[in-house]
Amino acid sequence: MTPQNTLGIDIGGTRLRAGIVSPEGIVLTRAEGITPSRSTGQAVVDELAKVVTQALQGHDRSAILAAGVCAPGPLDAEKGIAQATPTIDGFRNFPIRDRIADAIGLPTFLEHDGHACAFGEWKFGAARGTQNMVYVTISTGIGGGAIVDGRLHRGRQGMAAHVGHMTIQSDGPICNCGNPGCWEALAAGPAFAKAAQAIGFADGAAVFAAARTGTARAVDLVETQSRWLAIGIVNLLHIYSPEIVVLGGGVTSGYDLMLPFIETEMSRRAMVPFRNVPILKAELADSVGIIGAAALARELLPVKG
Amino acid sequence: MTPQNTLGIDIGGTRLRAGIVSPEGIVLTRAEGITPSRSTGQAVVDELAKVVTQALQGHDRSAILAAGVCAPGPLDAEKGIAQATPTIDGFRNFPIRDRIADAIGLPTFLEHDGHACAFGEWKFGAARGTQNMVYVTISTGIGGGAIVDGRLHRGRQGMAAHVGHMTIQSDGPICNCGNPGCWEALAAGPAFAKAAQAIGFADGAAVFAAARTGTARAVDLVETQSRWLAIGIVNLLHIYSPEIVVLGGGVTSGYDLMLPFIETEMSRRAMVPFRNVPILKAELADSVGIIGAAALARELLPVKG
Repeated sequence: MTPQNTLGIDIGGTRLRAGIVSPEGIVLTRAEGITPSRSTGQAVVDELAKVVTQALQGHDRSAILAAGVCAPGPLDAEKGIAQATPTIDGFRNFPIRDRIADAIGLPTFLEHDGHACAFGEWKFGAARGTQNMVYVTISTGIGGGAIVDGRLHRGRQGMAAHVGHMTIQSDGPICNCGNPGCWEALAAGPAFAKAAQAIGFADGAAVFAAARTGTARAVDLVETQSRWLAIGIVNLLHIYSPEIVVLGGGVTSGYDLMLPFIETEMSRRAMVPFRNVPILKAELADSVGIIGAAALARELLPVKG
Repeated sequence: MTPQNTLGIDIGGTRLRAGIVSPEGIVLTRAEGITPSRSTGQAVVDELAKVVTQALQGHDRSAILAAGVCAPGPLDAEKGIAQATPTIDGFRNFPIRDRIADAIGLPTFLEHDGHACAFGEWKFGAARGTQNMVYVTISTGIGGGAIVDGRLHRGRQGMAAHVGHMTIQSDGPICNCGNPGCWEALAAGPAFAKAAQAIGFADGAAVFAAARTGTARAVDLVETQSRWLAIGIVNLLHIYSPEIVVLGGGVTSGYDLMLPFIETEMSRRAMVPFRNVPILKAELADSVGIIGAAALARELLPVKG
């Protein structure tokens, strides 16, 4: 039988995930590990090699076409180098792609995690069948990726779609990146958690729970946070002109509560021809990185199996 | 001799321009007229037909491959329709492309003006040889276009890159589009002129002139406006990851004065891997629309001459 499957690898700041993925986007096997984020880059690669071995258990490694790796930016996807990943100490000018290829013995491709997730949702998730889509993930930070005119938007060094670092309030709170007023600083999980604590809730999840029972100050905070989210989304509508926007990440546990407020703010801020763009919830949950990276590896292989 | 040249048509809020353009981007003939902006869409087409006849004088119309038209948005470039052009009354759901094709008897293609200008600067101007570039024009409004991974960024309905309507100050001044805090409302010509008048200058040009002789309050205002410009540019760096940014439009008469302030603000706000992107001045001056539209018509023709 001709090799058909690819391996997807998702390197996160806290977890390492790997899995064999079929050409139809089905995750056939899965394994996870903990990212040694306060260690060297090689320690991450060594731990990842164990996770990969576990994911490949019972499968013939030579029947896997290639491995796709996604990791947080900023990274130079073209050269396969992590430049300065804030969440992983060892990823400072670290040649992720080649070290992983050496460790696992498969042709290996590297892509920014937001790009891989966008690609996954486009090929197999909420954005199937579109030519233009934007994926935004809202959790500790805000990341994303886009499909532009039927292709993954890469940009110089594969660094496009760092959407979290749009300034939306020029004199706003200071972001992790050092810049005042980034979308991420106003709309990501930590901003939500801080605002939640300021009005007596433990975290964002507690606010969602209280909002579901109609607690007014919880509903108000959901509205405020939804409006910050919407401002960035509207910027992306005007820039990308997508057919749909797909939202992923932790904050989307309150997607159903936030959507009406997001839509109201969109109809206030977006120019008329951009107002009817649907905002959908991501479908691939925490397999999105594996699925997207595996699908990209298939696409990037010079000769297809 | 095989037909080689195309016709470029640039419909602006105040002027109509047409010219024959060679495959090398050379403007061989040129004609101009005044846009009947307070009349019907057909009046614009009729006036344009006269300008085209003048541009084609002494040339064999049957030797022209096609016409490329660019016009201000928002327009549905795919369907060839102007949706609601603020500066031209007759362009309300008006089928520009087909009416012009009827009037001039050439295969006709329509593109958003920011896209055509980006394409022109990419093919024949300041951005030659790049794979990723962003073009921004700063005059009465802020418009733009982008080349993404070696292709013009179109998006749904060809409406991508409405860069002027990014929110950069969520509670900022109200824009023409009705939204508070758009980049255009803070950084385009009218905002500059208003700020100039508030400190006793006639207009932006007077501020540039005074800044050139070292007048402190003029230099300060140039700095302030440059910083607003830079905030939007940095957003575009993070989203598009271009190799270069090209600035066109009226405000760029002070490009040399503004650039150092823009670069300082960029180095404050852009993430490290994005800071070294050059900001260049557009090269094609007021022929950029004609050249870009003509080049796009050549590219869009199903069979090349």
